[in-house]
Amino acid sequence: MNKKFWITDKPINIDECIEKVVRPDAGAVNTFIGTVREFTKGKRTLYLEYQAYVPMAEKMLRQIGEEIREKWTDADTVIAHRTGHLDISDVAVVIAVSTPHRNDAFEASRYAIERIKEMVPIWKKEHWEDGTKWIGNQKENTSYHEGIPNEEEMRNG
Amino acid sequence: MNKKFWITDKPINIDECIEKVVRPDAGAVNTFIGTVREFTKGKRTLYLEYQAYVPMAEKMLRQIGEEIREKWTDADTVIAHRTGHLDISDVAVVIAVSTPHRNDAFEASRYAIERIKEMVPIWKKEHWEDGTKWIGNQKENTSYHEGIPNEEEMRNG
Repeated sequence: MNKKFWITDKPINIDECIEKVVRPDAGAVNTFIGTVREFTKGKRTLYLEYQAYVPMAEKMLRQIGEEIREKWTDADTVIAHRTGHLDISDVAVVIAVSTPHRNDAFEASRYAIERIKEMVPIWKKEHWEDGTKWIGNQKENTSYHEGIPNEEEMRNG
Repeated sequence: MNKKFWITDKPINIDECIEKVVRPDAGAVNTFIGTVREFTKGKRTLYLEYQAYVPMAEKMLRQIGEEIREKWTDADTVIAHRTGHLDISDVAVVIAVSTPHRNDAFEASRYAIERIKEMVPIWKKEHWEDGTKWIGNQKENTSYHEGIPNEEEMRNG
């Protein structure tokens, strides 16, 4: 698979993500891996469910790669995000950034995860012991009690 | 292998490093991977050779793990460094840090690589097209033209 920015309902192969960015002119790779945490503020999560509006989400991931290339011209970026049912400790997102020197790799990787949380249309449904809730966006400042927004609502942000 | 801080002359398995830190109470893993870069300031490296004073190097890596634990109490850290002959793009060092939240994972991982460069007794010999040179320490501000220091010199820094 030659894609560098993708949404998948299968487990993400971390090594594959890293291999896509390793190259002779890079000396540093920074990888950020988001995993499903069991406890948040004392509340136990049983599992999560992610849904994405895939074409737009992949487009946004590609855009983040372009933004990184503008800011750190020698950076090479891969981002994969998983959807569907995820158990505790499962990998939800993998970012891998290679650069000639390490400072840029750290900064670009950090930039990528913040931008994903800000703008990529992926919704998370928390399944707790006592109920469920759709978390509206990844910054968790909007929620959709009725479910994820429809396409029209998504387009309008 | 249950070690969390080790020096090896074999290829480092990145997935294995990550698996050692993934856990239910962590939602973030940051990984730093140092690879052999072909060009440095226009000069082409053919391959590198790393030598370590292994018992002291592993002790220093463990110490870095302890320092991280003092600064980021919920962090779990793994560090592996390779020795011997490394070709271009080979993985020289892998750091993996898991924390409940992502900010700490980025910061602790960054701290680890800076401390490795500062204090771990690992020496690098550059093999260029027109010669070789032992790079004295990882900050590259001391060099040992005659080879790596002996144990006595290492103990004295």
